[in-house]
Amino acid sequence: MKKIDLRSDTVTLPTEAMRQAMASAELGDDVYGEDPTVNRLEQLAAEKLGKEAALFVTSGTQGNQVAILTHARAGEEIILEADSHIFYYEAAAASALAGVQTRTLPGIRGAMEPQEVEKAIRGVDIHFPRTALICLENTHNRAGGAVLPPDYMRAIHEVATRKQVPVHLDGARVFNAAVALGIDVKEITRHVDTVQICFSKGLGAPVGSVLAGPQEFIDTARQWRKRLGGGMRQAGVLAAPAILALTEMVDRLAEDHDNAKRLARALADIKGLQVDPQTVETNIVIADVSGTGKSAVEILELLAEEGILAVDFGETLVRFVTHKDVSRFDIDEAITRIHRVIQGVA
Amino acid sequence: MKKIDLRSDTVTLPTEAMRQAMASAELGDDVYGEDPTVNRLEQLAAEKLGKEAALFVTSGTQGNQVAILTHARAGEEIILEADSHIFYYEAAAASALAGVQTRTLPGIRGAMEPQEVEKAIRGVDIHFPRTALICLENTHNRAGGAVLPPDYMRAIHEVATRKQVPVHLDGARVFNAAVALGIDVKEITRHVDTVQICFSKGLGAPVGSVLAGPQEFIDTARQWRKRLGGGMRQAGVLAAPAILALTEMVDRLAEDHDNAKRLARALADIKGLQVDPQTVETNIVIADVSGTGKSAVEILELLAEEGILAVDFGETLVRFVTHKDVSRFDIDEAITRIHRVIQGVA
Amino acid sequence: MKKIDLRSDTVTLPTEAMRQAMASAELGDDVYGEDPTVNRLEQLAAEKLGKEAALFVTSGTQGNQVAILTHARAGEEIILEADSHIFYYEAAAASALAGVQTRTLPGIRGAMEPQEVEKAIRGVDIHFPRTALICLENTHNRAGGAVLPPDYMRAIHEVATRKQVPVHLDGARVFNAAVALGIDVKEITRHVDTVQICFSKGLGAPVGSVLAGPQEFIDTARQWRKRLGGGMRQAGVLAAPAILALTEMVDRLAEDHDNAKRLARALADIKGLQVDPQTVETNIVIADVSGTGKSAVEILELLAEEGILAVDFGETLVRFVTHKDVSRFDIDEAITRIHRVIQGVA
Amino acid sequence: MKKIDLRSDTVTLPTEAMRQAMASAELGDDVYGEDPTVNRLEQLAAEKLGKEAALFVTSGTQGNQVAILTHARAGEEIILEADSHIFYYEAAAASALAGVQTRTLPGIRGAMEPQEVEKAIRGVDIHFPRTALICLENTHNRAGGAVLPPDYMRAIHEVATRKQVPVHLDGARVFNAAVALGIDVKEITRHVDTVQICFSKGLGAPVGSVLAGPQEFIDTARQWRKRLGGGMRQAGVLAAPAILALTEMVDRLAEDHDNAKRLARALADIKGLQVDPQTVETNIVIADVSGTGKSAVEILELLAEEGILAVDFGETLVRFVTHKDVSRFDIDEAITRIHRVIQGVA
Repeated sequence: MKKIDLRSDTVTLPTEAMRQAMASAELGDDVYGEDPTVNRLEQLAAEKLGKEAALFVTSGTQGNQVAILTHARAGEEIILEADSHIFYYEAAAASALAGVQTRTLPGIRGAMEPQEVEKAIRGVDIHFPRTALICLENTHNRAGGAVLPPDYMRAIHEVATRKQVPVHLDGARVFNAAVALGIDVKEITRHVDTVQICFSKGLGAPVGSVLAGPQEFIDTARQWRKRLGGGMRQAGVLAAPAILALTEMVDRLAEDHDNAKRLARALADIKGLQVDPQTVETNIVIADVSGTGKSAVEILELLAEEGILAVDFGETLVRFVTHKDVSRFDIDEAITRIHRVIQGVA
Repeated sequence: MKKIDLRSDTVTLPTEAMRQAMASAELGDDVYGEDPTVNRLEQLAAEKLGKEAALFVTSGTQGNQVAILTHARAGEEIILEADSHIFYYEAAAASALAGVQTRTLPGIRGAMEPQEVEKAIRGVDIHFPRTALICLENTHNRAGGAVLPPDYMRAIHEVATRKQVPVHLDGARVFNAAVALGIDVKEITRHVDTVQICFSKGLGAPVGSVLAGPQEFIDTARQWRKRLGGGMRQAGVLAAPAILALTEMVDRLAEDHDNAKRLARALADIKGLQVDPQTVETNIVIADVSGTGKSAVEILELLAEEGILAVDFGETLVRFVTHKDVSRFDIDEAITRIHRVIQGVA
Repeated sequence: MKKIDLRSDTVTLPTEAMRQAMASAELGDDVYGEDPTVNRLEQLAAEKLGKEAALFVTSGTQGNQVAILTHARAGEEIILEADSHIFYYEAAAASALAGVQTRTLPGIRGAMEPQEVEKAIRGVDIHFPRTALICLENTHNRAGGAVLPPDYMRAIHEVATRKQVPVHLDGARVFNAAVALGIDVKEITRHVDTVQICFSKGLGAPVGSVLAGPQEFIDTARQWRKRLGGGMRQAGVLAAPAILALTEMVDRLAEDHDNAKRLARALADIKGLQVDPQTVETNIVIADVSGTGKSAVEILELLAEEGILAVDFGETLVRFVTHKDVSRFDIDEAITRIHRVIQGVA
Repeated sequence: MKKIDLRSDTVTLPTEAMRQAMASAELGDDVYGEDPTVNRLEQLAAEKLGKEAALFVTSGTQGNQVAILTHARAGEEIILEADSHIFYYEAAAASALAGVQTRTLPGIRGAMEPQEVEKAIRGVDIHFPRTALICLENTHNRAGGAVLPPDYMRAIHEVATRKQVPVHLDGARVFNAAVALGIDVKEITRHVDTVQICFSKGLGAPVGSVLAGPQEFIDTARQWRKRLGGGMRQAGVLAAPAILALTEMVDRLAEDHDNAKRLARALADIKGLQVDPQTVETNIVIADVSGTGKSAVEILELLAEEGILAVDFGETLVRFVTHKDVSRFDIDEAITRIHRVIQGVA
């Protein structure tokens, strides 16, 4: 039985073209700034994101952490959504490494209220940390791949500008947002000072992310990357497939979105599952399995026996992610199997 | 016109007895452990709090921060109420110094739901920080001096024990809680592993707090105090009045509570102010001034012109704190003046 | 038998005048900036040290650490002498709290070679931390109370100015230096950007130090002090005796220096001890006990039986410190007893 | 004119076999532990180094920093050689990230005296940080590729074991040491608790290092790697060439050593250069150019005009590193050109 892996778009394998690109990449020592492929990727990413400069990093987490280390210093505060990746999934690195306090606000589909953000920015008082950064996440993972639309981004940016606080975007899946909205990604990234994008999720590259922003910011970020051990030598072997991710793989994210919606509609019809297809904007589907009387973890075990892999997202929530290595045919097959499993228990 | 200072119980001046105690204190070098007055205070405080050992520190903030540094290490997470002093008023020190991530939960009158606390304790996953500590605050300052009753403390302690997470109590005003409840303070502190109490608030000593807990914990805490520069030489000059605070000044907190209730009832009758006397459990009164059409800061300025000092606690909230240097007569005088000011604007 | 305590000048007890000053000090809440005695001390200290502003802190360690936290940020480097107090005796606080790397240089009688300091200042390279601070210590404790003369201070300052690196002086005993040199302390402190002085060593106050420097620096330092828990309420009770320390106790340090020289000369004549009286410039005497065939710790135990207290400063080194609570008569008595002890073993 | 790049062995380009290995690597998501190639590399490296487990990291710096973060916590001290890579070239990361204080000891050809190390380990005292780690570097870069022989390693290990302090080896070039000594690398690594080795230096892989040690240590290290952003997805693309580095490329380091000695002997004969061929044990040659009357930077510029690339290692020192992309023929050509340049100025 073929395994259908819907755990995450991080499981995507590089395309054959990416493999060839690695094998034939023009290389140099990137610590000396001499890897032409890395340089090409950084320039390309900066252009696509509408920023002055960019820095190749080994993961989304590294991109986010380097951003925080560069924007803020110990004893300052950053504002971020309570379910954001930076707060929830980065093992407290922001506080461990940068010494910043995390001030979380609840979000509605990943979006903090701009007014609440404004109120959370600290005034001047010896008891208060300076607010050094606002972090957004678009699309928002734990909110089910929710898209933060440009108008929302602008609203936050206006607050931030008025209060002189920079904004960082965790854009690990920002191309999913752009594709879903049918707009150029710059329409999103223009509303932030710095942005991190990931090549190893839906875009299919094996490894890597980019942090983009003002030139001076990137210069400082480069040293923080070095401290974290992210300075690599012939990093062009990773940059080469990342270039393909950026140039060849963005448009096809629409397929993943279609598949996710198809999956969501089908799951919504399965008794015992609760899914709102309206909320599926990109490639993530979250199903509430409480109607089955079983926990998410129990359902996941049963699904795994049928070759369907997903992850739990809370006590009774299961997350399915579509991606390039799951075809429409696979989705239909997955639906059949999920149906079978749920029927067996509900 | 006599100034009536209701900004905080921290403004209390030492009593004559405290001044004499300072002048005649038996002293030694506390870094060598040889200040008999400090040793006496630490032993006394440990006994009163039902803990093995105690450590004299220069402030409530230092007591809390030393506790966090001793309980946790960088890359771990602490759970605390969203309006707690440690999170709100300590300038992000927990993240700056200890490198811990603050996970805040909303409270109802300062109390986080035990179930929510349980859910917030992290499971084992490479993406998750270990939950190293739960912090409580009793009485709770920003919740208007709200008391966390022993049953609540026990409920949190049960969750914590089951999950093997220690509990620290910011008990800067825990004697206010004990007096309000009419119980021995140990009925509260038995439900926590470590506790910090303040002598320079309602108890009237000029400077100082104590951190109490297991002997081994205090031994480690002592070195963290040293790193923060809290190791003092003839600290007995501060410990002497603190001993009086602990032995002579606790019972009289009841007066402050009576005065606060009296003030609350009177303010509730003033048109333009909104106060719920029912919520005044100890020595803090919070009044909503939005009915005056003015902001808290504007009202405070007008009050100051009439010699009434208080602080803002948000856009339209004003906090009044009663204490030993404000008599019942002063309270009545304050009510008269506040009435006059509010009538003038509402 | 009267105990003669030569362990440290930190054991000095406050004078009767200091005790009275505490008892009658005019007080206020220093967190609100309203303690008149603290304000007076800070202004007085700033003037005496020739700096714009000053901040009262609870210890020399706190003054040094607040200085480092204000001058530097994580990932930077500070240059300091290999035996300096900040490096040797502050429990790695500079790295723990400020995240700075300590670059130590060996000193000759506490003085790093200016050329070596210049070479140790880092150039611009992604592999290098920025050099954020040079720390000096005057007098230098582990160098036996050695004085860094103004010419040396100026030489370091010139290097620092040329390289745009600020200089901080750990001046816990800088008045000993000034008195030994017969100059105004400003002749020393003019060569540094910031300085920390201690009241609770030779100057006899029970607790406290001051950090002085530019106004803007002190404003930032004040918040770091708050984070470390050094913000106190009626701190005037400590500031009052500190004012006396600063105004009444400086000149008498000459007595301690005379006593130290007297002690050194006498010890130099005792067979089994090696002391160079020429190196005794202030109130510290270091004796090498290796001629006795015993370790420093063993000798200290024998001395303690005779009521003479001192501390070890290495395998075979014993440090004696003179101070206001040890009279010339006590010194002579100490010499007699030390002689007796050493004769018994050598 | 062909450029001959002797700046570092980090400039080595992957072999054709490595490129093919990348293109055809079996891949999975390593954050889920499912990349078979990464797993194979980690197992292989652990075996070759004689350790229980290993962790793939993106650089030597990351391996060292993760090791320090895992061995030590904030407020502790690590002992390391004054010219070691960790202290000198990692941008103060150990203090910035782990909050540890660096205690440096001078080395003779990279080797700290075992007795000095023993003396530098701190006793128990509230003023002292705990000594958490001793770091060694073998071969030692700034000591000119000097080899620390097994007897020396054992001597340090004995001190460390007696004092219960673990030892970490920065073994970025430890295979150069093993090849130079003609022994199995385990004869070196058995004397340390943890070791970091680099694939992207003389061994020629494009990117990556491994940290090896006890299983429990590696489990904790894995989370610190995650915090630093070193957790990668299809990391097998980097692990595949690293496997070849480990299995195919070690023995040929002998060639690099021969070339280095050949270069050293020739340079020693050039008037104006000072080189001691006796000290060239591996692939690094350091030449003192002070006899030319020019600085290292000036000489490097002149060499660069002749297509010879090297780096400065101090005011008048130039470092040349031999590696697989510089043949014996290239070395002879380099000698000719260097000779020409030096003759022109000396």
